[in-house]
Amino acid sequence: MDQSQTTLPRRFKVVGQRKRRPDGIDKVTGRARFGADMTMPGMLWGLVLRSPHAHARIRSIDSSKAEALPGVKAVVTGADFNGERNDVSINCMAGDKALYDGHAVAAVAATSRQAARQALKLIEVDYEVLPHVTDVDAAMKPGAPVIREDLITAGVEPVPTKPSNVAARHEIGKGDVEKGFAEADLIVEQSFRTEATHQGYIEPHACVASVSPDGSAELWVCTQGHFMVRNVCAALLGLDSAQLRVTASEIGGGFGGKTTVFVEPVALALSRKANRPVKIQMTRSEVFRATGPTASSSIDCKIGLTKDGRITAAQAELRYQGGAFKGAGADFGAMAIFTPYDIENVKAVAWDVVTNRPKLAAYRAPGAPMAAFAAESTLDEAARRLGMDPLELRLKNAAREGTKAAYGPTFPRIGLASCLEAIGNSAHYRTPLGPNQGRGLACGFWFNFGGETCTTINVNKDGTVGLSVGTPDIGGSRASMCAMAAEELGIPYEKVRTVIADTASLGYNDVTDGSRVTFSSGLCTIQAARQAIQRLCQRAALMWGIDAEAVVWEDGHAKPAGPNAGKFEPLSLAEIAAASANTGGPIAGHHEVNAEGAGVSFGVHLCDLEVDRETGSVRVVRYTAAQDAGKAVNPDYVEGQMQGGSAQGIGWALNEGYVYGDDGRLQNAGFLDYRIPVASDLPMIDALIVEEPNPGHPYGVRGVGETSIVPPLAAVGNALRDALGVRLTETPMAPPRVLAALAAAAE
Amino acid sequence: MDQSQTTLPRRFKVVGQRKRRPDGIDKVTGRARFGADMTMPGMLWGLVLRSPHAHARIRSIDSSKAEALPGVKAVVTGADFNGERNDVSINCMAGDKALYDGHAVAAVAATSRQAARQALKLIEVDYEVLPHVTDVDAAMKPGAPVIREDLITAGVEPVPTKPSNVAARHEIGKGDVEKGFAEADLIVEQSFRTEATHQGYIEPHACVASVSPDGSAELWVCTQGHFMVRNVCAALLGLDSAQLRVTASEIGGGFGGKTTVFVEPVALALSRKANRPVKIQMTRSEVFRATGPTASSSIDCKIGLTKDGRITAAQAELRYQGGAFKGAGADFGAMAIFTPYDIENVKAVAWDVVTNRPKLAAYRAPGAPMAAFAAESTLDEAARRLGMDPLELRLKNAAREGTKAAYGPTFPRIGLASCLEAIGNSAHYRTPLGPNQGRGLACGFWFNFGGETCTTINVNKDGTVGLSVGTPDIGGSRASMCAMAAEELGIPYEKVRTVIADTASLGYNDVTDGSRVTFSSGLCTIQAARQAIQRLCQRAALMWGIDAEAVVWEDGHAKPAGPNAGKFEPLSLAEIAAASANTGGPIAGHHEVNAEGAGVSFGVHLCDLEVDRETGSVRVVRYTAAQDAGKAVNPDYVEGQMQGGSAQGIGWALNEGYVYGDDGRLQNAGFLDYRIPVASDLPMIDALIVEEPNPGHPYGVRGVGETSIVPPLAAVGNALRDALGVRLTETPMAPPRVLAALAAAAE
Repeated sequence: MDQSQTTLPRRFKVVGQRKRRPDGIDKVTGRARFGADMTMPGMLWGLVLRSPHAHARIRSIDSSKAEALPGVKAVVTGADFNGERNDVSINCMAGDKALYDGHAVAAVAATSRQAARQALKLIEVDYEVLPHVTDVDAAMKPGAPVIREDLITAGVEPVPTKPSNVAARHEIGKGDVEKGFAEADLIVEQSFRTEATHQGYIEPHACVASVSPDGSAELWVCTQGHFMVRNVCAALLGLDSAQLRVTASEIGGGFGGKTTVFVEPVALALSRKANRPVKIQMTRSEVFRATGPTASSSIDCKIGLTKDGRITAAQAELRYQGGAFKGAGADFGAMAIFTPYDIENVKAVAWDVVTNRPKLAAYRAPGAPMAAFAAESTLDEAARRLGMDPLELRLKNAAREGTKAAYGPTFPRIGLASCLEAIGNSAHYRTPLGPNQGRGLACGFWFNFGGETCTTINVNKDGTVGLSVGTPDIGGSRASMCAMAAEELGIPYEKVRTVIADTASLGYNDVTDGSRVTFSSGLCTIQAARQAIQRLCQRAALMWGIDAEAVVWEDGHAKPAGPNAGKFEPLSLAEIAAASANTGGPIAGHHEVNAEGAGVSFGVHLCDLEVDRETGSVRVVRYTAAQDAGKAVNPDYVEGQMQGGSAQGIGWALNEGYVYGDDGRLQNAGFLDYRIPVASDLPMIDALIVEEPNPGHPYGVRGVGETSIVPPLAAVGNALRDALGVRLTETPMAPPRVLAALAAAAE
Repeated sequence: MDQSQTTLPRRFKVVGQRKRRPDGIDKVTGRARFGADMTMPGMLWGLVLRSPHAHARIRSIDSSKAEALPGVKAVVTGADFNGERNDVSINCMAGDKALYDGHAVAAVAATSRQAARQALKLIEVDYEVLPHVTDVDAAMKPGAPVIREDLITAGVEPVPTKPSNVAARHEIGKGDVEKGFAEADLIVEQSFRTEATHQGYIEPHACVASVSPDGSAELWVCTQGHFMVRNVCAALLGLDSAQLRVTASEIGGGFGGKTTVFVEPVALALSRKANRPVKIQMTRSEVFRATGPTASSSIDCKIGLTKDGRITAAQAELRYQGGAFKGAGADFGAMAIFTPYDIENVKAVAWDVVTNRPKLAAYRAPGAPMAAFAAESTLDEAARRLGMDPLELRLKNAAREGTKAAYGPTFPRIGLASCLEAIGNSAHYRTPLGPNQGRGLACGFWFNFGGETCTTINVNKDGTVGLSVGTPDIGGSRASMCAMAAEELGIPYEKVRTVIADTASLGYNDVTDGSRVTFSSGLCTIQAARQAIQRLCQRAALMWGIDAEAVVWEDGHAKPAGPNAGKFEPLSLAEIAAASANTGGPIAGHHEVNAEGAGVSFGVHLCDLEVDRETGSVRVVRYTAAQDAGKAVNPDYVEGQMQGGSAQGIGWALNEGYVYGDDGRLQNAGFLDYRIPVASDLPMIDALIVEEPNPGHPYGVRGVGETSIVPPLAAVGNALRDALGVRLTETPMAPPRVLAALAAAAE
């Protein structure tokens, strides 16, 4: 990025306005095409056979009867995945073992769904059922069933000689925590557990794959990252990435859960074998059983403070299970857990653990909400014991510009203190509570990312502009891209149309995750627009017969400058575009970058809730979220992100959680038994946007998508503590736990 | 284009090889998706109501009964076309008059084809039938029914005061034909007529349109130019071009006939009104009645020569009818007619005429085959009268480098003489004829075009390359693009995949026509590859920590050069791509241009045929086509173009032609009655590629698609003259005409 062009703060004409999102009408009228809305001539229906066992050796699979069924065109098993046979591949289709309830063991493609369903029943799998474990603490215990015989703990000295369920140990830290705790007047130490939750996106995974006998292939898919899907699927199936063209459908929610592949390689393998297009649509039950929820966690947290509220040391041990595969993300938890605060002595140890559960996927700020639940609850307890206002305590310790975070960086301009002040100044903060009500405050941190990004701007002859980006729009990013392109080019918002280009039509783009899109694709859009502007000025110069250097771009017009200033009438973008065929051809701007300079983000949430002491039912009655968004390109969608993340965090805190039976099977694989908050469950969430500009972006944009899910677990927990007089340390903090806590406190 | 990079002749590694076309397997296995192979959720079926009258005033249209039919969701008429109401718009949907048999007057969209068919019958159109004219000479006569009341002949002084069917007069010329004819020893003067022919593409027009209430729209369509479709449809419907995203399907033949719109604006109008996606598929009968055939023509030709065969003057008057709208293309005929020859005195007058026929569309070298029929037949007659070898006569007068064509340009290096020599040296030319056989020779010329073109190259991390072009592939151009990109980048052909990007994903591209694609998109691909190479070298320099200037690209590798030569191991494209995330992000190359420098093309055809004097049946027994292709990027497809054009020209000469009844209705709107040659009708056509490089292209590429249809009419006619002893001057030269000519000669 050309930092010299960064001028902040600046006045905007389009950016910052609440413009209508371009995909809005399509989505409310049903015209938008999602994963399941594609068909191809001759298409087959694919269905997946899933293990009913949490852990079982697959002695053999006999698909001969299924193959003989009329209408069945292909059956695939793990043997058909002839590319890289890595964790992603094995998660998509089991190898010699079924590793969790719902693990794919075979798949069929048939001319009708009925035939495919029948065929599934005819596949004979000979299982040897093995002992299983689904709890993170149980999985770490000596004597626990070892799930992956080849798993040797990484990051431990000396290197263990035997396999275990502990995949890795990570440590983050600075200073000397022993010294820090010695300096403390008060040490608070608590343990917490959080259950796995699901992103709960409305749209189940769906795709249509078509593979030619020569290996060239197409895939239509609902995903957060079609370039990732291309690269991963090509690798798993032994294709060149250029052979596979992936088109992203509209997406009915992802929240991180669509940042990897599940049925896509299966559909491709079926299509390749059947030589026909194959559609796979997951059921809701499959989504719960076999896509990626969050990690569940078990965390010990210890904080030392002076009596005037200065944190002297903070220490945590985080144990996350992420299903039957490495990478539970405990390291992200360790990196994030104490980062909102400027603490001299920090130590966080993270353990990644495997269990007989589905492989986790990202879910908004993955790994951070449970860490914040532990840290912010402990800090709340400390404030109580010190008799300090919890906001005051946090403001005193808040990370600021120049604070060195335990995970490495020294922060440039950041917005935590501003968010704390915004909450402190809110009417909400000063409103008295009613009976049986409690109030909780919590902070949260998320890194935000940049990453590989490409955009192209094409100037059409009628003066409209096509903007082509490669990051699926999960939260209104097309609106933001239109706004940034229009801002830079100086034309109306409505004259820009942004599309998500397929993988064959644009360079590689990282997944829409890490709150990276408005930052990275935005930065890339601005740079592409600047290249287009440079060319527009060159064309204007040609039209006037003057030097290109003597042309400036202002308000959507090329204007003669320097010695030629005022000599010619300014030319609009539309006028230059209309003449472009005669001045060299089409006008475009392109940019490719691995974007750096993403700005970290902080959120501060304030939650009021009311408890029904008879039923244990908890109702959130008021909720305010403040967040440092950087420049809010479209405030409506920034607020939407803050509200959405808050709602999901509240669900996680109060109701959501995977329930495994003793048999290791998931007992609540549906929205009736896995209860996400619906509109009537929640009050309107007040969103306070704090525009602390990110110096790493031309317009000051930070990411906004993830931070808002970090504070709610603790904000709700702290409010419950306030209302109940007793602290709950395990999610979901559902009525049975509330009643049990009240009963225990009464004893 | 950077001319300094043009080094011809050069050695090629990939270019010039007979590589398999990337779309080949998809097309022979049925996987390729054509216009009719798209569906969308909630899609309706659109059908068009067409005029049964050649010429009629539309007093009123009552669609109320149709609209009341269950399942009918929209009916549109001309009133629904609320954008530019120009000729294209009126051709797609009639205004106050039906101008030809088959002219669209209304359209319906319904939930089933059955309902749509029923609805068509319920639309009541009150026609006032008017006198009509379908013949070009008849239409020019005083007293002919005037079809367009607002049509005043252009190009005539003084400007006529009354409307007529003559749309325009054009004149091309140089020197003084009166003086030239005065110098002649022999003057041959003849008149010719050709009937309209259809491109005969196998795939009828089809599209699916979907328009949102906010005006954003998608169109899937079989076309030779989806950017043209976007711009034209947006203009006709009053949309911004950025609102309309057009995706080109695979195409089952076009030959020029899919360079404009017919049902596309209708589908969009229906979709907009119904608020649902709408599919329209034409029937074969609709294709014949209402899409664009060629012009029919009537031409007078006069050539003067010295007795040693030097042409002293050439003159022609060309009258073309192109249906009920301006632009019959007689000017192209006038520009092309004498261009193969270096003649001092030339005059060609062209008349564009309107009749009650469908608006013409392009068909391979539009306007030239009928002109060549006249000129080359006349020249053949001259050779006979002079007792000269027809090849010798042509070689003596052939245009060469430095010849100034009557239509303007002075030719750079061209290949007519080389083609004549190639034919002269062929075994075919020296093989004696059998009984009832005749041999004919003819030359042809086509301009070839450049035009607006954009391409993008994306280098994938696994070392494969995606090439994105905007010109639909009607003749194997993806194969040629892959070859040129692979050549320039120094990687295997199989590592490049070329796709046709949609209109939202690439800058504007002119239509695939004018034999422009291998030239223009090829040039653009080479330039984009050169930009990518520059960036690959920069990345290699970064990886080595040296100056980018000290890196050269050779054989698909970056190599240190200058003072660093030999200091580092060369890095392959794949190695640089794999590291790209760490050296700045994705690597791409882009190019946008209005391409100039297309090289003109000449063809020389030699035809042997045999006549059955009893039935008048004519069988082509041997056929050789020579053509100056420039560098043949993929010789298989160059030969295919030469063979295909020859076959179509033979069909035009012998069998094809529109038959209108006295009622002005087309009588042969189907392949049973409109007879195109099938494989069993023709011998294998020998193609002699003459690689006369085009100095305007980095690899010397010329266009090859069109020239081959120019000589066959005359080559067949001259062979018939040779076999019969009598000349036929009107196409199709079908058995009834052959018998009539024989009978007349016998009298």
